[in-house]
Amino acid sequence: MAPIKVHGTPMSTAARRVLACLFEKDIEFDFVTVDMKAGEHKNEPFISLNPFGQVPAFEDGDLTLFESRAITQYLALQYANKGTNLVYEDLKKEAILLVWKEVEAHQFDPPASKLTWELALKPFFGMATDQAIVEENMAKLGKVLDVYEARLAKSKYMAGDSFTLVDLHHLPNIQYLMGTSAKELFQSRPHVSAWVADITVRPAWAKVLAMK
Amino acid sequence: MAPIKVHGTPMSTAARRVLACLFEKDIEFDFVTVDMKAGEHKNEPFISLNPFGQVPAFEDGDLTLFESRAITQYLALQYANKGTNLVYEDLKKEAILLVWKEVEAHQFDPPASKLTWELALKPFFGMATDQAIVEENMAKLGKVLDVYEARLAKSKYMAGDSFTLVDLHHLPNIQYLMGTSAKELFQSRPHVSAWVADITVRPAWAKVLAMK
Ligand SMILES: N[C@@H](CCC(=O)N[C@@H](CS)C(=O)NCC(=O)O)C(=O)O
Ligand SMILES: N[C@@H](CCC(=O)N[C@@H](CS)C(=O)NCC(=O)O)C(=O)O
Repeated sequence: MAPIKVHGTPMSTAARRVLACLFEKDIEFDFVTVDMKAGEHKNEPFISLNPFGQVPAFEDGDLTLFESRAITQYLALQYANKGTNLVYEDLKKEAILLVWKEVEAHQFDPPASKLTWELALKPFFGMATDQAIVEENMAKLGKVLDVYEARLAKSKYMAGDSFTLVDLHHLPNIQYLMGTSAKELFQSRPHVSAWVADITVRPAWAKVLAMK
Repeated sequence: MAPIKVHGTPMSTAARRVLACLFEKDIEFDFVTVDMKAGEHKNEPFISLNPFGQVPAFEDGDLTLFESRAITQYLALQYANKGTNLVYEDLKKEAILLVWKEVEAHQFDPPASKLTWELALKPFFGMATDQAIVEENMAKLGKVLDVYEARLAKSKYMAGDSFTLVDLHHLPNIQYLMGTSAKELFQSRPHVSAWVADITVRPAWAKVLAMK
């Protein structure tokens, strides 16, 4: 039995961040489905794993973690010698990685998550999209992607020369948004577009999508 | 001349996060005031330091960083042997620290920052507080602090037995909110209240406040 367990649903962007990391690192794991429609994430036993009642939660032996970006960082450090290396040894390179990791979390994710919800998930669940929220966040995401376009003109990946945690953290929202009208925001910027094409065809990411 | 430079304003919550870290680590630095009223943060030379046009930006020799939580993480690692130790060597302990670091960024900061803006900064700038935003975020922050209360009943500090980056990252918003009606959210929860009292009297934090 694999010691690592991921609790979540394969559609969740946050769970997909962890799944992508596990496949990149070539780490075996068990996936435990949380029935969110039934509210399992807001009740025991799940809330003993994550008191905020959100997926994913994660177990590695007796260590219980939550928050997707904490789990990926743990995996990158703890399993440094397995699969794809997703961080830098050199502290100056790693410092630049830390900057762009925060950029994903604080600049990209807020508008991208709102657009994923309004444009991809709400229609999927038969709910009505709020156009005012869409417009506001398309404008915000466009400005973020202007900075990304300049960054990716100088650097093949967001944090440097190689694919790292930073690129990986973007994948779940990008995947959803490329199936919506927000796709244009990525495609109209050549370096962003090439980066999206590169990171979305990674074999580890295909394995995440196959879990649907 | 100190090789480290912080660009910002001493009132900025994000800049204060970096300043608190520098004082905890007992690292000398130069503070470069950015005149935000004059829009200096949205123009050169500042936007070459941070393309998102936000304070703080940071220089250590030829290394330029931004995003407050990336800068503090860099300082904690690069100056590991100076001043207060703000991270854990042991990877399992550090993994728990990473979880709560993400909690501050993704659960605490969004409502806390909105309340800091509405209740502390808008009145300071002579702007009108939006009561609907206040109510919504008071409710959200209350729920987060319920989880903190349970956490701090078992753990002296957020990440474990000692003061770390996680506690430090909370200080700027807590300091502002303790001067507003949101204070009650902290004071009504005994373990949260004791934690706030403990972390806000640290000498390094007093040095940040003295920069006003
Ligand atoms: N910052 C968290 C976000 C987790 C999150 O928002 N999960 C969503 C699914 S993608 C969820 O469980 N939502 C249910 C809820 O918030 O009640 C992480 O990165 O793990
Ligand atoms: N996530 C950033 C946030 C920085 C930030 O929001 N800074 C504010 C001052 S506290 C700012 O520069 N605001 C001006 C703006 O966003 O235009 C960090 O932690 O450094």
